[in-house]
Amino acid sequence: MTASEPGSPLGLHRVLAPAGVLPQAAWQLDSRPSLWPDEVRVAVERLNLDAASFRQLREATGGAAADMRAEVCKIVAERGKMQNPVTGSGGMLTGVVEEAGPESPLGLAPGDRIATLVSLSLTPLVITDGLADWNGRSEQVPCQGHAILFGRSIATVLPADLPGPLALAVLDVAGAPALTSRVVGRAADSGPAGPGGPGAPDGPVVAIIGAGGKSGSLSAAAARRAGAGRVIGVVPSEAEAATLHAAGLADEVVIADARDPVALAAAVHGAGGPAAVTVVCVDVPGCEGGAVLATADGGTVIFFSMATSFTAAALGAEGVAADVTMLIGNGYVPGHARLALDLVRCEPGVRGLFEARVNEGTRDGKVEA
Amino acid sequence: MTASEPGSPLGLHRVLAPAGVLPQAAWQLDSRPSLWPDEVRVAVERLNLDAASFRQLREATGGAAADMRAEVCKIVAERGKMQNPVTGSGGMLTGVVEEAGPESPLGLAPGDRIATLVSLSLTPLVITDGLADWNGRSEQVPCQGHAILFGRSIATVLPADLPGPLALAVLDVAGAPALTSRVVGRAADSGPAGPGGPGAPDGPVVAIIGAGGKSGSLSAAAARRAGAGRVIGVVPSEAEAATLHAAGLADEVVIADARDPVALAAAVHGAGGPAAVTVVCVDVPGCEGGAVLATADGGTVIFFSMATSFTAAALGAEGVAADVTMLIGNGYVPGHARLALDLVRCEPGVRGLFEARVNEGTRDGKVEA
Repeated sequence: MTASEPGSPLGLHRVLAPAGVLPQAAWQLDSRPSLWPDEVRVAVERLNLDAASFRQLREATGGAAADMRAEVCKIVAERGKMQNPVTGSGGMLTGVVEEAGPESPLGLAPGDRIATLVSLSLTPLVITDGLADWNGRSEQVPCQGHAILFGRSIATVLPADLPGPLALAVLDVAGAPALTSRVVGRAADSGPAGPGGPGAPDGPVVAIIGAGGKSGSLSAAAARRAGAGRVIGVVPSEAEAATLHAAGLADEVVIADARDPVALAAAVHGAGGPAAVTVVCVDVPGCEGGAVLATADGGTVIFFSMATSFTAAALGAEGVAADVTMLIGNGYVPGHARLALDLVRCEPGVRGLFEARVNEGTRDGKVEA
Repeated sequence: MTASEPGSPLGLHRVLAPAGVLPQAAWQLDSRPSLWPDEVRVAVERLNLDAASFRQLREATGGAAADMRAEVCKIVAERGKMQNPVTGSGGMLTGVVEEAGPESPLGLAPGDRIATLVSLSLTPLVITDGLADWNGRSEQVPCQGHAILFGRSIATVLPADLPGPLALAVLDVAGAPALTSRVVGRAADSGPAGPGGPGAPDGPVVAIIGAGGKSGSLSAAAARRAGAGRVIGVVPSEAEAATLHAAGLADEVVIADARDPVALAAAVHGAGGPAAVTVVCVDVPGCEGGAVLATADGGTVIFFSMATSFTAAALGAEGVAADVTMLIGNGYVPGHARLALDLVRCEPGVRGLFEARVNEGTRDGKVEA
């Protein structure tokens, strides 16, 4: 490898196996620190594992810190990236730019503190500290090592007005509110009010499954801004319902197990549904059928959960003769980082939920003294 | 079980395990022949395994007829339905109505020869002949036994003017041309021509990945009818390219391995792309990245393949910062059966491809004398 060889903006030159696939689909990446001319190397400070991956790791290892650390280190050592082999998902990271290749189009300079907006599942990564500072209880993982950005990767300089762990948590799920905003905005623009129960005000009814979580709370706030007539927040427990009520992000808060299709649909219908737009933000498998049944004919389901099964969604909708549009939640929508950060800045309810979530893992995921 | 107990139109009363899920998501269904009041029992004549399931079964068993028969019979005996445990997918069936419950809303009467339009993955099924007449080489499986339709299942009486195996093959993939038609029609209506290379005529550029197959050829014909300016058909081999050329369903025919993202994107771009709408109709895993790269910013990818990975699509698009809308191909769109049958009736190119495909398994899947 020399700095004069041309690289691929997609990072194809970093794919070790299997040959010819994109970095996201690869089993193993070349994570060496020396750069191709259009790459950037980042000194990693913190990883943010995606929710589905974190849950899988905790359940598979039992959750002990040492086992969690060992498992993540093993995956990264083997694959050259943090892509959970079971869920296929990754997360993102924050760090400081160490070196930017002369042909990098990203506009980054050494010393910039940034967050990556592409998944860890395609980002070459080396961990050098064994994750010694991670307590295993938070999705946020203090980490030393380096990561590589490609020419077509996206990254954003961290905002100066928000704490780093908070910004990281927000940026990790920035695609969800952006796509929700787009879909709800189109539904609101398309003329008559979306389907809603008696008394539903103008504007489409939007159901957010998992509205108390990170992507869920942001999506609820984004839906309201985009013109939703009624936002129905679905949560799994009384405790989450109380928190969501207090945050004021939903017009109706209902409790249901998203894996129970009949209960989920009944809860949404009872709260003013069916929904014109249903947004699935929970990180457990088996929510496809309920989401479809909660949605009106002609409506749209957006699946953001990495635990979504393509087949279950496709055949589930067909199986109940539901004419719903089902979207795979693309994590990239232009302007998504700014939109998500603005929501956290301007919506105290969203900010409160995020701060509580970020602090859940004691001391932001660091081991206790 | 008595005929007076109320059933669920979704078939929840037939779910044996796990409790509370929809029949599609269930591991095991109750496939007993006695009916709830809103059910219909069908004497099965023929199963049509979906392409991803058939391929998986053939690869797992080696393809010998006895092994294929044993494997399908084992799945159905264990699960009470034909849902491939690896792919999660099913297929559909044809047969003759034996009995319709007094409260069935489907409008079927004993003696009607029908095709089910809901997946086998949620249809209670019993096989009584050991599939003795199946040669294991065709997706179409001559079969004796019974199947159950729920109140909300959909079925259609087979057309009198088309051979049964042909109609079955068409109806199996009827969702694909219907959804393609809707998406291409909207793209065509939305004002200026979709993105296309120099010289692209008005109307969106549509790429059909796997245009020589069943869902692919129907989708190509549907795209053209819906206003596509240019239809690019992608096939894996010279032989399929020649067949597709002869059928006249695509303006451009290109050869590429859909699992090679760079090659696939280059082929589509070279033929007048990127596409405003890309339709994925191939039954092999690993086509997500190439489909995204073949699509213009602001465009749409429709995934019909049951081999699609939700995570690979979501993270793949994010990983290359592609602002594309990604749809899970819903097998149900109102009017889909009529639209698909009309295409086969009116488009000799589509009909020729289907007839060749149906006859591929010698004597329509029957064992040779």
